[in-house]
Amino acid sequence: MSQTAISPTREENYPEWYQQVVRASDLAENAPVRGCMVIKPWGWKIWENIQRYLDKKFKEVGSENAYFPLFIPVSFLEKEAKHVEGFAKECAVVTHHRLELNKEGKLVPKSPLEEPLIVRPTSETIIGESFAKWITSYRDLPLKINQWANVVRWEMRPRIFLRTAEFLWQEGHTVHATSEEALEMTLQMLDIYKNFGHDVLAIPFITGEKTESERFPGAVKTYTNEAMMQDKKALQGCTSHFLGQNFSKASNIRFRTATGEEEFGWTTSWGATTRLIGALIMTHSDDDGLILPPRIASAHMVILPVIHKEESRAAVLSYCHKLSEELKDQTYHGQNLEVIVDERDMRGGEKTWNWIKKGIPIRLEVGPRDIAEEKVCLMRRDEDPKKKHFIPRKEFIQNATAILDEIQKRIYERAVAFRDANIIKIDDKDQFYAFFIPKNPEKPEIHGGFAHTHWCGDPKIEEQVQKDLSVTIRCIPNEMEKEPGTCPFTGKPSAQRVLFAKAY
Amino acid sequence: MSQTAISPTREENYPEWYQQVVRASDLAENAPVRGCMVIKPWGWKIWENIQRYLDKKFKEVGSENAYFPLFIPVSFLEKEAKHVEGFAKECAVVTHHRLELNKEGKLVPKSPLEEPLIVRPTSETIIGESFAKWITSYRDLPLKINQWANVVRWEMRPRIFLRTAEFLWQEGHTVHATSEEALEMTLQMLDIYKNFGHDVLAIPFITGEKTESERFPGAVKTYTNEAMMQDKKALQGCTSHFLGQNFSKASNIRFRTATGEEEFGWTTSWGATTRLIGALIMTHSDDDGLILPPRIASAHMVILPVIHKEESRAAVLSYCHKLSEELKDQTYHGQNLEVIVDERDMRGGEKTWNWIKKGIPIRLEVGPRDIAEEKVCLMRRDEDPKKKHFIPRKEFIQNATAILDEIQKRIYERAVAFRDANIIKIDDKDQFYAFFIPKNPEKPEIHGGFAHTHWCGDPKIEEQVQKDLSVTIRCIPNEMEKEPGTCPFTGKPSAQRVLFAKAY
Repeated sequence: MSQTAISPTREENYPEWYQQVVRASDLAENAPVRGCMVIKPWGWKIWENIQRYLDKKFKEVGSENAYFPLFIPVSFLEKEAKHVEGFAKECAVVTHHRLELNKEGKLVPKSPLEEPLIVRPTSETIIGESFAKWITSYRDLPLKINQWANVVRWEMRPRIFLRTAEFLWQEGHTVHATSEEALEMTLQMLDIYKNFGHDVLAIPFITGEKTESERFPGAVKTYTNEAMMQDKKALQGCTSHFLGQNFSKASNIRFRTATGEEEFGWTTSWGATTRLIGALIMTHSDDDGLILPPRIASAHMVILPVIHKEESRAAVLSYCHKLSEELKDQTYHGQNLEVIVDERDMRGGEKTWNWIKKGIPIRLEVGPRDIAEEKVCLMRRDEDPKKKHFIPRKEFIQNATAILDEIQKRIYERAVAFRDANIIKIDDKDQFYAFFIPKNPEKPEIHGGFAHTHWCGDPKIEEQVQKDLSVTIRCIPNEMEKEPGTCPFTGKPSAQRVLFAKAY
Repeated sequence: MSQTAISPTREENYPEWYQQVVRASDLAENAPVRGCMVIKPWGWKIWENIQRYLDKKFKEVGSENAYFPLFIPVSFLEKEAKHVEGFAKECAVVTHHRLELNKEGKLVPKSPLEEPLIVRPTSETIIGESFAKWITSYRDLPLKINQWANVVRWEMRPRIFLRTAEFLWQEGHTVHATSEEALEMTLQMLDIYKNFGHDVLAIPFITGEKTESERFPGAVKTYTNEAMMQDKKALQGCTSHFLGQNFSKASNIRFRTATGEEEFGWTTSWGATTRLIGALIMTHSDDDGLILPPRIASAHMVILPVIHKEESRAAVLSYCHKLSEELKDQTYHGQNLEVIVDERDMRGGEKTWNWIKKGIPIRLEVGPRDIAEEKVCLMRRDEDPKKKHFIPRKEFIQNATAILDEIQKRIYERAVAFRDANIIKIDDKDQFYAFFIPKNPEKPEIHGGFAHTHWCGDPKIEEQVQKDLSVTIRCIPNEMEKEPGTCPFTGKPSAQRVLFAKAY
């Protein structure tokens, strides 16, 4: 077996491999505050790219950005009963607004607040308060607002990017005059997220509806984009919620119709979080480290000057920078190519492996011989680390963005193939249980994949498989076959197969 | 006296005028959480423009973005003594991570944290913790990191945009190998902020150094950009701090020099906040509402279709949209022109005044006659609301960005003239006191302006004038005359005049 840059490998210990990829790629690190993370520049650029792409899409559907307070009075949370159930268990509570040094010289909380505040876990209730003021007539509808913000949910088992006490997200909130229009909006946003997965993140999301037990607290319908990680577990990507009139009743969001009646609005909410970065890592990366799809990559290519003799240094560096400038003038999916010239004083092999682990799509080596022959030595992150392509400089410049798109496509197709190979139709209860029970008790993370199985709709079955196998229904898929059949758990009729899986 | 759109006028009641401009322009509103604000879409666009401009400048000087936790353990704050003094009095303290319903059905805090956390009021201490890990050698320096984030300082007298419990900002943090380099960085950032004021916000900042009593808690030197509002009070714009080795010692940020010694790094921090939006409002707006300089405006122009007869509606609207599309194709300082076609069903006068109050730089009226004559009717926010310019359509399209720049220049020059007319050289203590004591006790906000006065350097004088007049030294200006003289308060020699003022 050849040596790999990341230890352990995925096969050896998947959860630990994930942590090591995050570390080796320099994306982020655990903060000294429990459950919080520091997103480092290489990771932050991915989030900036996510923001740029989604923000443009949101604006195209008429959503405007705004900003609402970080703090929510506890009494607001009380307005929506399911919301309380969902969030009260895991929220950061602000109780004081001052610290004072005590006699031992320690800072202790002083000046209690009249009403405690929670740090927003989501903003339906605080945004609803504003919406109730902003909306009076049907002419004010639809109202489409998005905010980019940090939120806090006190996770008991935090994992970097996947479950962190503080995370970053966007949350869209809309109000509509009719149920139909609100539902249409919910599905439109689901579609934007799905396309974002397919086109940019190279993650082949499966879209579908959540069952009642997996809904957002307070929602009438929750739609999701589910992805399969390389350990065959599911990760919930972006979600879009049809909230009916639940939150408009809780926040008193009413409007006068064209005929003069007063009605409650129909609301939606939809969000994407920094968790997507975790999904990105676990979908594409390998035992050599991170693999970034070019369209979301922190940078597109790195030029590695090869300097064997000191006297060639100036000429090689100047050639590399000229090459970089020419490449940077090109646009790739609406932004200029991001090209890094790595001049660091470091052994060549170490430097190369540094960039492999960071997942940059293209590495170019340029030394005196390449300059003399007007060639570049191209290496692709989607290929074997040792594979080198010697290409005329001019040809590479002409084809650079096409090569990036080829890498993007290949990474995507690999993810689709993996996903499809690990979704199995299962029509028998014993087979279902065998599918999810790990063959090797020492590696509980290795199991079958997604089970595409009929389900009669009974939540008790969900409870049972969750208890027995830690498996849940990830979604009732929108775009897979919808033939009726028989539930293998109860023998009752089932309208269509659903997707069962272990999940993050 | 002609009627104005905002009541009261600046003259009648400046603080209340400010609140009314914020309301009428739809920039923001007070949140139901004490001291917090909701930034509405029209205000958020200004913040997005601020972010876009500054972010580009930061990246040009080699700063990279990252993200650090919202929460800071209380023990971190204890590491820097002055920092404690500065921030412990006004911070939001998180003490619990769960809420539970009590017997009365009220949610109450449960599960106390082992160590309370504060919501970051600034991030030197938490970022320092990461920097200490990231830096080992001089090769890792300089390190230049910026974050866009929300921060919380529990203001006792909150005012929208000017002093809010939660506000948004960027905070840059850098580490350097030498004191000289860190100081140079501090001044470079000050300059970026100053140019941003001059070129984009049309705010003629006066740059200078703060006296010891006004320094950022823990800084060795604090530099500031001070602006004069229309009530002649000062508003501190952006600040840039040279932190010496204070925070590197507190956080143990050390590096190995080229010769192998261990040394503490030299750090800086610099920030700009949503307070700038308050400065923007109070620098330019008038008794008809907000005035937005075109380079920072939420949108550049609005097209108001004039439809007197229903049968002309389709033709007028189609003409307006075509005009809008042609304008939107143009770029203005690196972004496409933002043009709104306001189709709302509303009386013409009401609609026009709506846009005047929102401060949009250009309004265009287009009706059947204008279409027939291939003209547009242009109105500028920097001119009398009733003044109309009839210009051939083609000529307007050609000159649109030049007109915007002309408006920008005029607004800037007006602010410079106002500022310069209200900075007075004062060399006598009685005159100084008379300058700041309001003539009319019912209007305590009306006083002289900025006093450009000698000061011997004694902090007791600062204490005294603050006590007597609520006046502080705003800065020791960098770019005003630096002749020595005599301190009018003590008769002692003074190296140069400083700027005294009342301040926000």
